[in-house]
Amino acid sequence: IVCVDDIDNVAELSAAALKHGTALEVFIEMDVGAGRCGVIGADKVVEIAKAVDAAAGLKFTGIQAYQGAMQHMDLYEDRKAKIDIAVDMVKEAVAALEAEGLNPELVSGGGTGSYYFESTSGVFNELQAGSYAFMDADYGRILDENGQRIDQGEWENAFFLYTQVMSHAKADKAICDAGLKAQSIDSGLPVVYGRDDVEYIKCSDEHGVIADPKGVLKVREKLRLVPGHCDPTANIHDWYVGVRGGKVEALWPVSARGKAY
Amino acid sequence: IVCVDDIDNVAELSAAALKHGTALEVFIEMDVGAGRCGVIGADKVVEIAKAVDAAAGLKFTGIQAYQGAMQHMDLYEDRKAKIDIAVDMVKEAVAALEAEGLNPELVSGGGTGSYYFESTSGVFNELQAGSYAFMDADYGRILDENGQRIDQGEWENAFFLYTQVMSHAKADKAICDAGLKAQSIDSGLPVVYGRDDVEYIKCSDEHGVIADPKGVLKVREKLRLVPGHCDPTANIHDWYVGVRGGKVEALWPVSARGKAY
Repeated sequence: IVCVDDIDNVAELSAAALKHGTALEVFIEMDVGAGRCGVIGADKVVEIAKAVDAAAGLKFTGIQAYQGAMQHMDLYEDRKAKIDIAVDMVKEAVAALEAEGLNPELVSGGGTGSYYFESTSGVFNELQAGSYAFMDADYGRILDENGQRIDQGEWENAFFLYTQVMSHAKADKAICDAGLKAQSIDSGLPVVYGRDDVEYIKCSDEHGVIADPKGVLKVREKLRLVPGHCDPTANIHDWYVGVRGGKVEALWPVSARGKAY
Repeated sequence: IVCVDDIDNVAELSAAALKHGTALEVFIEMDVGAGRCGVIGADKVVEIAKAVDAAAGLKFTGIQAYQGAMQHMDLYEDRKAKIDIAVDMVKEAVAALEAEGLNPELVSGGGTGSYYFESTSGVFNELQAGSYAFMDADYGRILDENGQRIDQGEWENAFFLYTQVMSHAKADKAICDAGLKAQSIDSGLPVVYGRDDVEYIKCSDEHGVIADPKGVLKVREKLRLVPGHCDPTANIHDWYVGVRGGKVEALWPVSARGKAY
């Protein structure tokens, strides 16, 4: 399946499909508020979908409408307000498509911060939520319908960086070995899991500085960090180490490791 | 060579060296302003160095004193002021060591923002500068002695992310395929190399948003990005593609790829 938001791309994809003797399923990509790829408005969606429908080697499959920009808004009501707009845009596009006899088989969207809205919208039928499986420090802070952090409610943290204290030369500071090369801090610093007596306060290439005001940490002590942003942190590592009940049960390769483009 | 900033570690290293029938060279790590690992003060340095000198299987080699926290300060004078403090601390430590008959063979420090200070200090004799070879957007902004950006003076950018415009559905915005999974933005967003008509303004997992107010970019157009921070960007990729005169001359594996700890 490929996403298209440019009508010129339809002829190119058609030619490529024919050249290689295959057929491509095509989503029309809508921008429903994320401000990234995608067309805005039902007219544009219909225009491209008609071109896809008419093109040899292409099958019009549906709509991709992921609202990425609202997923991390703290308040449930704020997220709902943004998704209500997205749902209305998608409903309008689907109605316009159906008026042309183009019934989308798949209408795709939804993330960890919104899937309950899309899934009950009556128009989306595919969800793209992923972070829920790991949870990270930034997502964990958003609040559910009851005002509870989602990492203390519906979901739990399941994705950790295992780090070790490598220096404690200053009484109130420990230095650990997980820095920028082990994680992405674009969405904030990691949280030391299960501890409120120490705090990860600074990250440099190969070091993390952990405030330890009471001097409780020891050199070689191991800590679990919950990364600020799971996606571009998972991407850096070669292996997941699956642990259950304190024992390693499985090693899974990160199959998309290095697939940055 | 190993760095030590904890006297208890000396006995452990000695035992390990003896167990494996080898000898370890030891640097005493000083914190000369970076606030990471390292001891502060000549007394501590001498105390650990004496323990190293007395320990079987260990050789006292010198001092590691990298001031990482000043490297990116914009003004030459500000950087000099910080390094003057570091140099004084190191001189004091070296004098105290020599008074004990412990002459350091190596005194190591210096980075891309400071190596001219350490190298003329009369006390450092090993430099740790690395970023100069690549240059990045954050380092490039610091000013040399003459008030000129260092990436337009002594050094040039030599490290790029090659990215492609994948969508231009909005007239004033292009979307490219280099996002957070291709680079670290902890020190700021990347710069579009050689262009002042377009600007990389937002980074998400797999997308970059490029402001294109005059609509000059085309879908499939390739751009070179200068990453904000070279170190944790190089670390993400498997290969360097060596280009000279527009032609690929070499492929070099990133040998430390994935060596996050």
